[in-house]
Amino acid sequence: MLSEFDLIKQYFVRPRHPARATLGIGDDCALLTPTPGRQTAISSDMLVEGRHFFAGADPVQLGHKSLAVNLSDLAAMGARPVGFTLALALPAAERDWLAGFSQGLFALADAFDCELIGGDTTKGPLTICITVFGELAPGQALRRDAARAGDDIWISGTLGDARLALAGYRGEVELPAELLRAAAPRMHAPIPRVELGMLLAGQRLAHAAIDISDGLVGDLGHILERSGVGATLDVDALPAGPVLSTRPAALRRAYAAAGGDDYELCFTAPAGARAAILAAAASVATAVTRVGRIEPAAGLRLVDAAGAPLDLRLAGFDHFAG
Amino acid sequence: MLSEFDLIKQYFVRPRHPARATLGIGDDCALLTPTPGRQTAISSDMLVEGRHFFAGADPVQLGHKSLAVNLSDLAAMGARPVGFTLALALPAAERDWLAGFSQGLFALADAFDCELIGGDTTKGPLTICITVFGELAPGQALRRDAARAGDDIWISGTLGDARLALAGYRGEVELPAELLRAAAPRMHAPIPRVELGMLLAGQRLAHAAIDISDGLVGDLGHILERSGVGATLDVDALPAGPVLSTRPAALRRAYAAAGGDDYELCFTAPAGARAAILAAAASVATAVTRVGRIEPAAGLRLVDAAGAPLDLRLAGFDHFAG
Repeated sequence: MLSEFDLIKQYFVRPRHPARATLGIGDDCALLTPTPGRQTAISSDMLVEGRHFFAGADPVQLGHKSLAVNLSDLAAMGARPVGFTLALALPAAERDWLAGFSQGLFALADAFDCELIGGDTTKGPLTICITVFGELAPGQALRRDAARAGDDIWISGTLGDARLALAGYRGEVELPAELLRAAAPRMHAPIPRVELGMLLAGQRLAHAAIDISDGLVGDLGHILERSGVGATLDVDALPAGPVLSTRPAALRRAYAAAGGDDYELCFTAPAGARAAILAAAASVATAVTRVGRIEPAAGLRLVDAAGAPLDLRLAGFDHFAG
Repeated sequence: MLSEFDLIKQYFVRPRHPARATLGIGDDCALLTPTPGRQTAISSDMLVEGRHFFAGADPVQLGHKSLAVNLSDLAAMGARPVGFTLALALPAAERDWLAGFSQGLFALADAFDCELIGGDTTKGPLTICITVFGELAPGQALRRDAARAGDDIWISGTLGDARLALAGYRGEVELPAELLRAAAPRMHAPIPRVELGMLLAGQRLAHAAIDISDGLVGDLGHILERSGVGATLDVDALPAGPVLSTRPAALRRAYAAAGGDDYELCFTAPAGARAAILAAAASVATAVTRVGRIEPAAGLRLVDAAGAPLDLRLAGFDHFAG
């Protein structure tokens, strides 16, 4: 029988990172020593079985994804990852599941030098809540309210393959098995754009940024609303994922513009920063694409490659809608 | 229809605390500006319906309790509350429930000047995950590994009424309705001992501390194990709650020594600090009681008022046992 304390010891306690966590797992609180003069960026995400991932999902991928979606929020602020807490409700303490989950979790944590510093475990419907901590210099955060008319709109990586994989699993679109296999990693194992975000903030290249979790149109809408601006988006310029690129134009447009689970960055930056942005992105081997322009007039205008208006029915994801 | 964003705006966004949260709810991350020279104490707790609270629990009390159990962890380190994140999985967005929950939550948050700075909402089985942040001076934290042989063992407040109320609801013990009503607030609305913890740490009165969430015997056991010491506990000296005090001695001993959900502090301190501890506790109107002694020999020895050994079968709560 694996007790709660055995579970934590065997799968989640690791040697302490001497530079950061003054006190890690095993006391009432963890103690972090903030770097003098830095701000702390904090984000929480909760993943629920059957809602954010399929029942029976591969635990290694789930461990990766649970942390990846949180690191993606740090990336969208331009913060350097420092540590995270993990609260885990489990129907039972199964060794195979715990071994896989902790493996996927720590592989990604180590890649970004982000330490597990505390948390909670309990019995319950499978639910994963991670709160992540990052640091950045005051005034450097890439905020949603900082877009300015005249800014370019940029997208990192590619969009829509995660949504295409989901549609394939659900049978919403017909997708040959080899294409589903090719698209699936974008759904199961997103790569948070941490290095790109840090460069955009650290070199003061971008004004505003957000990570695309609920679909570009909805998430860009948050930037527009909070910044008090509008935008024109060239839907045909959106960098569709390699698998989505093989699909018909209507699907390509819909999933690139409003598919969820991309975890790419959407950011706005002055035209004068174009060369520096391309150089920064190249230095971390991340593609970036210009897809539109911030404008003074409120609202989001979708156009095709020829500049003609597109009337797509798209909406961001809402957990309590429908 | 209440959307995810309406829900957050209506029930959880409040005016920003200008001194602390540089950026609150509504961006990818919250930004906190740590007080120069202070450490950050962090704790996460997850509450699951049917496990930590009854289905249909009063939402006002649930809002209070969800934050109280986290503030209690800050209290046990001696940290000053600063802020918290809330991740909430809800079966549906019900206005009455949200109004009650946020009312209970913010009443307690305001009492301790602790600001909601971010979070997440999603559909799912009712689950509440709060991560709380506090600050304290380096070296002042009340850790579990700092008890020393010769220390007194102290308890704040009273023990066992929360466990008694649970037993009453479950029909495990016969409890007249008026006594159940009197004991129930200890189960539904625990008071975190934040001011006491801050005084014990700030005046360097205590060595080690823990909050009693899984029962005193189990939680004191964590101090003993991590400090490499043992203890003798006078079970008849334990300050039983006013309702438990009316029950037979066997029940009084069992629930005071190993009942869960007390959220009182157990702390150890040198004998020379007795007068200062009583004065500090009186200054925040919190009773404290000496109940035993830390000793070099490993193990926890339970004795009665006459000093005779007691052989009680007690164990701390384990979410994955049984």
